[in-house]
Amino acid sequence: MLGLMQSQQLLISSLIEFAQRHHGDGEIVSRRVEGDIHRCTYRDVGNRARKVANVLDAMELGFGARVATLAWNGYRHLELYFGVSGSGRVLHTLNPRLHPDQIVWIANHSEDAVLCFDMTFLPIVKAVHNRCTTIKHFIALCDADKLPQDTGIPGLLSYEAWIAPQVSSYEWPEFDENVASSMCYTSGTTGNPKAALYSHRSTILHAWAGAMPDALNMSARDCVLPVVPMFHVNAWGLPYSAAMTGAKMVFPGPAMDGKSIFELIESEKVTFAAGVPTVWQMMLGHMQQGELRFSTLKRTVIGGSACPPAMITAFNDVHGVEVLHAWGMTEMSPLGTVCTLKNKHLAMDDGQKMAVRLKQGRGIYGVDMKIVDDKGSELPWDGKAYGDLLVKGPWVIAEYYKGEGGSPLVDGWFPTGDVATIDADGYMQITDRSKDVIKSGGEWISSIDVENIAMAHPAVAMAACIGMKHPKWDERPVVVVVKKPGADVSREELLAFYEGRTAKWQIPDDVVFIDAIPLGGTGKMQKTKLRETLLDYKLPGL
Amino acid sequence: MLGLMQSQQLLISSLIEFAQRHHGDGEIVSRRVEGDIHRCTYRDVGNRARKVANVLDAMELGFGARVATLAWNGYRHLELYFGVSGSGRVLHTLNPRLHPDQIVWIANHSEDAVLCFDMTFLPIVKAVHNRCTTIKHFIALCDADKLPQDTGIPGLLSYEAWIAPQVSSYEWPEFDENVASSMCYTSGTTGNPKAALYSHRSTILHAWAGAMPDALNMSARDCVLPVVPMFHVNAWGLPYSAAMTGAKMVFPGPAMDGKSIFELIESEKVTFAAGVPTVWQMMLGHMQQGELRFSTLKRTVIGGSACPPAMITAFNDVHGVEVLHAWGMTEMSPLGTVCTLKNKHLAMDDGQKMAVRLKQGRGIYGVDMKIVDDKGSELPWDGKAYGDLLVKGPWVIAEYYKGEGGSPLVDGWFPTGDVATIDADGYMQITDRSKDVIKSGGEWISSIDVENIAMAHPAVAMAACIGMKHPKWDERPVVVVVKKPGADVSREELLAFYEGRTAKWQIPDDVVFIDAIPLGGTGKMQKTKLRETLLDYKLPGL
Repeated sequence: MLGLMQSQQLLISSLIEFAQRHHGDGEIVSRRVEGDIHRCTYRDVGNRARKVANVLDAMELGFGARVATLAWNGYRHLELYFGVSGSGRVLHTLNPRLHPDQIVWIANHSEDAVLCFDMTFLPIVKAVHNRCTTIKHFIALCDADKLPQDTGIPGLLSYEAWIAPQVSSYEWPEFDENVASSMCYTSGTTGNPKAALYSHRSTILHAWAGAMPDALNMSARDCVLPVVPMFHVNAWGLPYSAAMTGAKMVFPGPAMDGKSIFELIESEKVTFAAGVPTVWQMMLGHMQQGELRFSTLKRTVIGGSACPPAMITAFNDVHGVEVLHAWGMTEMSPLGTVCTLKNKHLAMDDGQKMAVRLKQGRGIYGVDMKIVDDKGSELPWDGKAYGDLLVKGPWVIAEYYKGEGGSPLVDGWFPTGDVATIDADGYMQITDRSKDVIKSGGEWISSIDVENIAMAHPAVAMAACIGMKHPKWDERPVVVVVKKPGADVSREELLAFYEGRTAKWQIPDDVVFIDAIPLGGTGKMQKTKLRETLLDYKLPGL
Repeated sequence: MLGLMQSQQLLISSLIEFAQRHHGDGEIVSRRVEGDIHRCTYRDVGNRARKVANVLDAMELGFGARVATLAWNGYRHLELYFGVSGSGRVLHTLNPRLHPDQIVWIANHSEDAVLCFDMTFLPIVKAVHNRCTTIKHFIALCDADKLPQDTGIPGLLSYEAWIAPQVSSYEWPEFDENVASSMCYTSGTTGNPKAALYSHRSTILHAWAGAMPDALNMSARDCVLPVVPMFHVNAWGLPYSAAMTGAKMVFPGPAMDGKSIFELIESEKVTFAAGVPTVWQMMLGHMQQGELRFSTLKRTVIGGSACPPAMITAFNDVHGVEVLHAWGMTEMSPLGTVCTLKNKHLAMDDGQKMAVRLKQGRGIYGVDMKIVDDKGSELPWDGKAYGDLLVKGPWVIAEYYKGEGGSPLVDGWFPTGDVATIDADGYMQITDRSKDVIKSGGEWISSIDVENIAMAHPAVAMAACIGMKHPKWDERPVVVVVKKPGADVSREELLAFYEGRTAKWQIPDDVVFIDAIPLGGTGKMQKTKLRETLLDYKLPGL
């Protein structure tokens, strides 16, 4: 027997329709590439998103066609979020920080038909446009009178000239909520990039989950600053959750330095900001220099990588700002866990609370997670056992775009590639990447733990732990170390430093000193490359 | 092109699985019919819900079979919420406040197969059981040793004896999220009761929407007391939203008096309570007498009928408790609007905020609403124009159970039967019931406005305004008045009292004095009955 409820499909167009109708004068404030501050409302964004939909129809761009962006966080990008997906096309947010060759590869792989770009990225587009074989339309996200001449880009139009002839009325099409709405390529440390293809359903469910009090906690009384770029997993879904709740949005545009972000937070009375630790580090540095304080910011959500305890303390103790760790990935839309406290934690002292806050967080309803051992058996949630972290849920991918990489699922679960513990209260903590963990004699050694101990030595600037093949133990850890300029430490001194700081069998077998550890575009250590430089290395005694 | 996300169905079983896994030691506290306080956890509720599922399987009760309850708010009722729906049966929460004949009619109409009842309602069950022709199993929600003998109810079992033989492991079935999960009959002022048949999908989406910061704002740090009964539209969805967030739950059982509720709020550190105004009135009275104060309560959500301004003020000014108006109906699962403030309201003074708070609230994402005139044309959102209120959304009914009453929708919209205004910020205010509004010369007169003016006269105890047929104006208002004991007022004095208090054409044509106005079971005036007593009435001058 079926229920007798209305069978309304969950479509992205309903978000902007809701925001326009119920929060029409809700503000959208953007710092533009030109440097000025632009102000508009959900009503304006809705009207202009419908112009975008109309112009895509006028171009006879098919249902499901990919419309790519190379753009900062701003109101025009937001209009594209709703106009492109709402009209049945797929929004493809390209990452401008990638190498031009990668951008070409990705644009051709996704078969983008249109590319909308901020003027910042004109040099990239000039460099790649004639290699992007499927893109027929290039749109510069600028006013008509700012369009540069002689770019060599065929048929280049300004966004404003592009949408100007269109009317702002539009009947959003109704279709199956499982239709593709947007896509995002993973940076992919190995092999070619692969894309998650989100649906309207997954996006709406994720927007609900993301706005919940125990996730990002977004209401119509909030003013939200997504520092996380709109080309990083749709800015963690913030544009959707904000439209769903009518929150005021503030977009930083290209000005991602500490001073600009701080000024925007103060001038626009931001209550909530989200981003990666490096941005906050710059901002806190700027504030410390000028002895500045926040007057409205209440909380920050920090994701992308683990937040240093000192940063949590600085935000909390000096600025009265709550820091929430969040964890997720492109394949998860991205939210999986957020580190909000439970009722039982409220009476704890600051030290105990900090121990909880340092974890990646607890699962939000909708995402199931488990940790498993080598054989795939589930491990206990005791905060000690660690294993491969697997997830499932309606905003987790089933497969990659075009089936790249084959079926990623294991019995219906997506393997995150992380190694983690989960405690009895459901708080997950990542201890390593699956490919980095050292499997020694049936036990796992966290490469991050080994690195952290080395990093605690005053002479060590950077440390990378990698597993080396061993005939008896399968693998044994070796720590690769970059010394601080002018400092010195010997192999023996550093190995002695591990004594008492970890179990004997987890102490690395060797130390390799090196001038520099290869880093990727996002500042992460590239252990694959590091391994290549150590191809001829042999463990001591073998 | 479809998205490539996991196609997980939204099922009620996932709520209790999530709560058990992520909030296993989250507390469920219940005052029982026996009077004692019972404590258990989400882990316990999950384990026992699976026993319920197992016993229903063992009884070979078919998929979609109706399991009815006649029960207060408590942990066993909660176990049935998850065990019955989770295993694919339909939970039917009967309202024990109905007349036994109505209960018989409803139980036969829904074709209930099982009835689980609290011992409070044993007299009702004794009176009705042999007329409920489809119910084959009667379960008393009590310990095995508390089961009364010689009830005359065939095969009566205690709940504990019923589930005791079962194991607590159970594989929840997976099925289409549109399958029916629970049902609730409307009290229905005219005709037979009609039932809303909720689905798993509608219940989960509603639970998300209900837990949002701008709705009931539920987190794992909350302790929630649903005073609203679990037989009133699933306690506004609170049991589902609580499991979704891991909030502690406190159930008042049968003790709905002000003293008991207050004591439970204090002893269990309740942060959030929800119910109808009458309960709060009793509680505030009890607190005033004893000069008592709340120590943990932060907010109350008040629905069911409009909250008197004095109550909002008492909660806010005396007790520091935020009062949120909510509006909805059985056909809406029930949430439609909640009166949370927007960013722009925060800087207002108390009087301006109160003017907002007195409205029924603004729409939550998922529910669309509009007001229309006689011809079905949409009216502006200006806070002045009023018309029939229509809603639509994935937790609004498409039709009633068994198609009773035909198709209720108008162009896909459900007519609420309320007349309302909506202001530019989307705040809806009910001005009347559609059937009570007086349509005079193409204009509408709110019967509630006419009544409120009469009620403001010191000699008037109760007033009901009804429309009388008029050859020229279609209808003209007449106010039916019950005088206060010992007080007096003449027809002319009362009509003169309207001068200056409303527009001339909205002043009633006549006053009819009467000894008593007929009231329904929930204390609402029964204007249909009142009309019957005035069958021979003629307007003056006709």
